[in-house]
This record gives sequence, structure tokens and C-alpha cells, in this order.
Amino acid sequence: MSAHLTDTRERFLRQIAFLIEIDRVKTIFRKTRLLSDKRYENDAEHGWHMSLMALILWEHSNQQVDISKVVKMALIHDLVEIDAGDTFLYAEDQKDKTANERKCAERIFGLLPEDQRDEYLELWEEFEAKETAEALFAGALDRLGPVMQNYYDGGHAWKMHNVTADKVLKVNSQIKKGSEEIWNYAKTLIEKVVERGDLECKDRQ
Amino acid sequence: MSAHLTDTRERFLRQIAFLIEIDRVKTIFRKTRLLSDKRYENDAEHGWHMSLMALILWEHSNQQVDISKVVKMALIHDLVEIDAGDTFLYAEDQKDKTANERKCAERIFGLLPEDQRDEYLELWEEFEAKETAEALFAGALDRLGPVMQNYYDGGHAWKMHNVTADKVLKVNSQIKKGSEEIWNYAKTLIEKVVERGDLECKDRQ
Repeated sequence: MSAHLTDTRERFLRQIAFLIEIDRVKTIFRKTRLLSDKRYENDAEHGWHMSLMALILWEHSNQQVDISKVVKMALIHDLVEIDAGDTFLYAEDQKDKTANERKCAERIFGLLPEDQRDEYLELWEEFEAKETAEALFAGALDRLGPVMQNYYDGGHAWKMHNVTADKVLKVNSQIKKGSEEIWNYAKTLIEKVVERGDLECKDRQ
Repeated sequence: MSAHLTDTRERFLRQIAFLIEIDRVKTIFRKTRLLSDKRYENDAEHGWHMSLMALILWEHSNQQVDISKVVKMALIHDLVEIDAGDTFLYAEDQKDKTANERKCAERIFGLLPEDQRDEYLELWEEFEAKETAEALFAGALDRLGPVMQNYYDGGHAWKMHNVTADKVLKVNSQIKKGSEEIWNYAKTLIEKVVERGDLECKDRQ
């Protein structure tokens, strides 16, 4: 085989090694259950749904976005949970989470050829930093899913983990930075869960 | 509310109705099991993995492709199985499949605002027709996943459904139309499954 062919093959096999490793994200289960079944959702399903939310709802982003980039973020944002595990959005200590996830990002994206490793590490960092229009919109979609799941599931994950209405409203109000339209909708759902008595308002009392 | 606001809200709610309905694809199970666990894969997980294959392997497409379009195809190609169910790639009769899937495509994409309905119906038709560079490359990735899954799972799905080596090679040789590089790899995996004695060669005898 010529040197060029050997390089192409080696590059291809590194890409395949990455694609095999990320299969494990299908075994990382979240705190929320499906809309269509009473079982917990895994990170691969969440990434798929979030990508479709991006494609369908992009016109509601506050700022113009490069939608392909938002979809890429949606597809890869939870790969870091392969080593770090799923962290509940309402967990008090998010510091360990960040360090563990960064270590995992370096390991997982490090399986790829260098140019792709750099591209995807950078994209993941951008998503985490929540500064660009794309990261803010992707962040809004990342939160929309669980709000809908809790709404259709009697506030299941919120109740299970003793999260109060104030905290749900506060944490999810970040959605507003990516999309006012999506936040209006999400806020209405949260308020309806409170009205139904499925979410406690302790912090307000 | 002004007429414009009512229209925007109505449009948003149609998009949300679509996003809720497609959750059901997470309950459609395929014939192959995960690479990382001995449970069957569902269509949402498959769509997620196929999208990442597209992003990582696009340079190996025989023809130049619009990669965002391939990713979109990967994300939506199996939505039609919500009503039609999963059809095994090696099933004899694919005629009913096509009619049922088209009916489902009209129902599911019909939940969206008209412009998006037309866009996604057209994209799904393009994927099915396997004529454009994007559809051929997406088709190759759609087949790569199950070949890898069978390779790492002792030919499980092929054995369970009595598919012979000749048929596996013939059906999957379609991969070549999208990517010679991916077909070289997939063919090697199939040949190794045969060498290991995990796939019968009846048709050859």
C-alpha cells in the first residue's frame, strides 16, 4: 500500500474507533422519562431529539444562528457523560462535573484524527461557555426537552429530586437567552405543573 | 394578540406537536443490538449514531456532499416507522413497506407548518430514491451501522433471521455507491463474520 493509502486507512480506522466508543452514550440514562413511554431517556435519544428541535425551531432563536453548528452541538454535547455520568441540572455542586467532563472530552475526542479532535473539542467548549448565539440557542433546546417531559409526566423528575418551583423557574429562565418564544412556552408549562399541584413552591413560602 | 403574534404562536404550536409526536420513534426497536450492550437499538439511537457517522466520515463519500443535508436525512429517515414499524433490510416483500411508509410520512410531516412539511417530505423522498450524492452517502451510513453491530455481536441479527452470507454481501454492496472506503471496511467485517463461522454460506453451495 502506498504511504497515502496507509494514511487514509489509519485515519479512517481512528474515526471508526471514535464511532464505536460513543455507542456507550446509549447506556447513559437521564432523570426524565420519554414523552411516549414510562421509561427513562438515554443521552443518545436526547441528542437526537434536541437536533430535531434545532432544525424545526431555529426561526425562534433570538439571534441569527448557523443551524448546522447548533445541530452538531446537540449531537455531541453529552458525549462527555460517557465517563462523567449524567449530572442533574439542579445538582448543587457543578464544579466536579466540569472537571470530569473536560477530562472525558479530551479522551473521547482524542480518539479522532487531530484536525477533527480540535474541531469537536472546540465546539464542545463553545457549547459549555454559553456565549455565542449557537451555544445559547442549543442551551435553550437542551432545557426545553426536560421541561416538556416533566410537564407530560406529572413533574416526575422534579418531584423525585425535591426540586421546587422557584428553582425550576430560575434554572430554566436561561432558555430566554436563546429564545424568548421558547421560554414563553416553557414558562407556561412550568406554571401549569405548579397549578396542578405537581411541583412544590416551598421556596416561595 | 395581534394577527401576526397569533400566527407565530400557532406555527410554534404546530412545530411542538410534531416534536412531541416523533418521540414515539424511541419506542421502535430494530433487529440489531447495541455495540456497548446486549439490548436492541431503537430508531432514535440509530438516527443519532448515523448523524455522527455522517459528520465524522463525510470525507470518504465518493462524491462531494452537502453534509448538513446528509445529517438531516439521518435524523428524519426513520420517522416513517412510527406507523409502519421497522422492516428488516432482508425482508422479501418491500412493496407494502413503501406504501405504508409514504402514508406515515404524509401524516407525520403533515403536523408541521406547510413550508416545513414540504421540505421534510421532499428530503425523505430524496433519501428513499437513492439517486443524489447525499442520499447515496446517507444510504451507505444507514447500512454501515448494522454491519458493525452484527460483526461485534456474533452475526446475531443475521443468524436470528437466517440471512446467508451471499445475501448480506449483496444487500450491503449498495454501500459502495456512497463510499468505496466504507464498503472496503464493511466487506472485510462481513468476511470475518463468515470466517468465524457466524454466518452461513448456504446460497454459495
